[in-house]
Amino acid sequence: MKSTKNQLLVSVEESRRFMIDCFSAAKIPRSHAEQMADLLVAADYRGHYSHGMNRLEMYINELDDGTANGSATPTILKQTPATAWVDGENGLGAVVGNFCMDLAIKKAKNIGVGWVCAKRSNHYGIAGWYSLRAMNKGLMGISMTNTSPLMTPTRSKQAALGTNPISFAAPANNGDSFVLDMATTAVAGGKIEIKMRKNEPCPIGWAQDVEGNPTTDPHVAFDAGCLMPLGGAENTSGYKGYGLGVMVDIMCGISSGSNYSTKVRKWAHSGNTTEANLGHVFIAIDPDCFAPGFTDRMTEMIDICRSMPRIDPELPVLIAGDPERIHMENVDKEGGLRYTENQLQTCEKLVKRLSVKPLSFV
Amino acid sequence: MKSTKNQLLVSVEESRRFMIDCFSAAKIPRSHAEQMADLLVAADYRGHYSHGMNRLEMYINELDDGTANGSATPTILKQTPATAWVDGENGLGAVVGNFCMDLAIKKAKNIGVGWVCAKRSNHYGIAGWYSLRAMNKGLMGISMTNTSPLMTPTRSKQAALGTNPISFAAPANNGDSFVLDMATTAVAGGKIEIKMRKNEPCPIGWAQDVEGNPTTDPHVAFDAGCLMPLGGAENTSGYKGYGLGVMVDIMCGISSGSNYSTKVRKWAHSGNTTEANLGHVFIAIDPDCFAPGFTDRMTEMIDICRSMPRIDPELPVLIAGDPERIHMENVDKEGGLRYTENQLQTCEKLVKRLSVKPLSFV
Repeated sequence: MKSTKNQLLVSVEESRRFMIDCFSAAKIPRSHAEQMADLLVAADYRGHYSHGMNRLEMYINELDDGTANGSATPTILKQTPATAWVDGENGLGAVVGNFCMDLAIKKAKNIGVGWVCAKRSNHYGIAGWYSLRAMNKGLMGISMTNTSPLMTPTRSKQAALGTNPISFAAPANNGDSFVLDMATTAVAGGKIEIKMRKNEPCPIGWAQDVEGNPTTDPHVAFDAGCLMPLGGAENTSGYKGYGLGVMVDIMCGISSGSNYSTKVRKWAHSGNTTEANLGHVFIAIDPDCFAPGFTDRMTEMIDICRSMPRIDPELPVLIAGDPERIHMENVDKEGGLRYTENQLQTCEKLVKRLSVKPLSFV
Repeated sequence: MKSTKNQLLVSVEESRRFMIDCFSAAKIPRSHAEQMADLLVAADYRGHYSHGMNRLEMYINELDDGTANGSATPTILKQTPATAWVDGENGLGAVVGNFCMDLAIKKAKNIGVGWVCAKRSNHYGIAGWYSLRAMNKGLMGISMTNTSPLMTPTRSKQAALGTNPISFAAPANNGDSFVLDMATTAVAGGKIEIKMRKNEPCPIGWAQDVEGNPTTDPHVAFDAGCLMPLGGAENTSGYKGYGLGVMVDIMCGISSGSNYSTKVRKWAHSGNTTEANLGHVFIAIDPDCFAPGFTDRMTEMIDICRSMPRIDPELPVLIAGDPERIHMENVDKEGGLRYTENQLQTCEKLVKRLSVKPLSFV
């Protein structure tokens, strides 16, 4: 049954099928197409629509332009039993990321820790995809990446760092877990875009205008491209978010020898002609190397947090990963992903451009 | 020449001497007394007076009460070439911390990474002390600890986590470096105390009252003991700081099997009779395992940040570690540490109580 305009539901499987078809039409190996589709559909399923199908066209553009190499597979340049330095060979983010995290997992299973950093990679989607990969093997997983400059250091008028996300995931009992996946800016750029579309002001602490003044106007914020670090202004400790952003770039860009800080190309949905050369780091740690009973304590800690007395009785205290869990439950209940009309129009354009089978609705 | 009341300068060496004498009088081994004094005087020298001599009396109280065991040395419970699980045996924080970070450094030099977590430890001072220890050996260093509950999870009326600090340090050329050392709360408790003493309001985003409302009254904030996570309220992404706080506790408390979350005893300057059983983690990573030229790129990145166009021409853009660098230069220029009268009175009390030689002034 085809959905009406108000009910544009696409099943997770169908979304994945469509994205695999698009990537395959861009002439990349089937396994690479699948890895990218799995990454993007996971973002949509988890509720991070900005990092899902929303990015499909950009990736297709980069493959068409030859800015990224869809067939490349990563190379290990140097390794120890606990570490590896990887050249992503300008391959697709998911291909590089999965390779590196799987290597880190293998090392962690052997020796307790795997620490793998990669240069010459591309956008790797949600950082959480890779930390989850480690978590699903019973490990603690960490993933970070540098990105195009958007964050203003405290006291600076201009951006010098990306939104440089940190993800950390750890398993609890009965499928429960803690999954942190956060930009080190106060908010990611997508949140400014949503405020712009809704014509709502941004809270103070999200963004600056070109002169460095805090702004609540999402249009001014979007044009300036100057996101404030987590913590906002200096008197609310924005320098901590700035420090975390630099820390991420040291472990990703500086360590791997990729681009870093202002050397990373500017963000663009299309028209980039230079290799991104992003740096990532992937870390897996085996909790069995430490105190027995890790997942029991995880469950207890999560219970403590969720049971804290609420400020507003209607708003439960959550743990990182709960918003995504709630979103996935809703998708399952509704039977599919609810894309915007705008997104579906982009998909129609891709159908024509790549001659793939259109999306069908639930 | 004895300083006047307005000029209470104590040389770094004399401060260290005094603290060694106090710890020795509390009948702990000389090497343990030196390790604690080195830790505390480094905090004062770096400008973190809340974590320096200010803590001396508390440590002496804990030794006197038998709450901490000043003679204990840590035991390795389990290890791989890359990891270790350590029992701090309720020893002093610096003794446990130095032992663990030195072990992590050794492992990193051998195999690229050392990841050591400890249970049954006590307050370990500034987290930066341990990351610096790795950095001084040419490594990236990370140190984190859990602490007594003071941070309210987003939407919670009560505290469930400590200020749970993260420190990350990495070397650049010519003695320059990046040294992040931050509580995952918006501010540490000491900043509220300073506002209280000055009778100045706190910015919104620092603390809550007992009902969970943001407060600007430092007295209300101090009494409630409810610090907000980095990022402040939910609409400015305080859940990220909360997430970071939980992450720290997972790597420290949950991994090591120490106390965690609300199981950590409440903060008290004196009168604690139960073992703290805190958990820490110490990580060292050898950048030589990755791209050559690490310190060159570090220097370039630091230069980029420091050279960013300023919002206020009078306020230079800094890099984490710069405020401490500036403070150390000032101490060197002035010839000593400038303790408050209040602190010096506490020292006089300790002189009588422990029969040690009084502090002399520059």
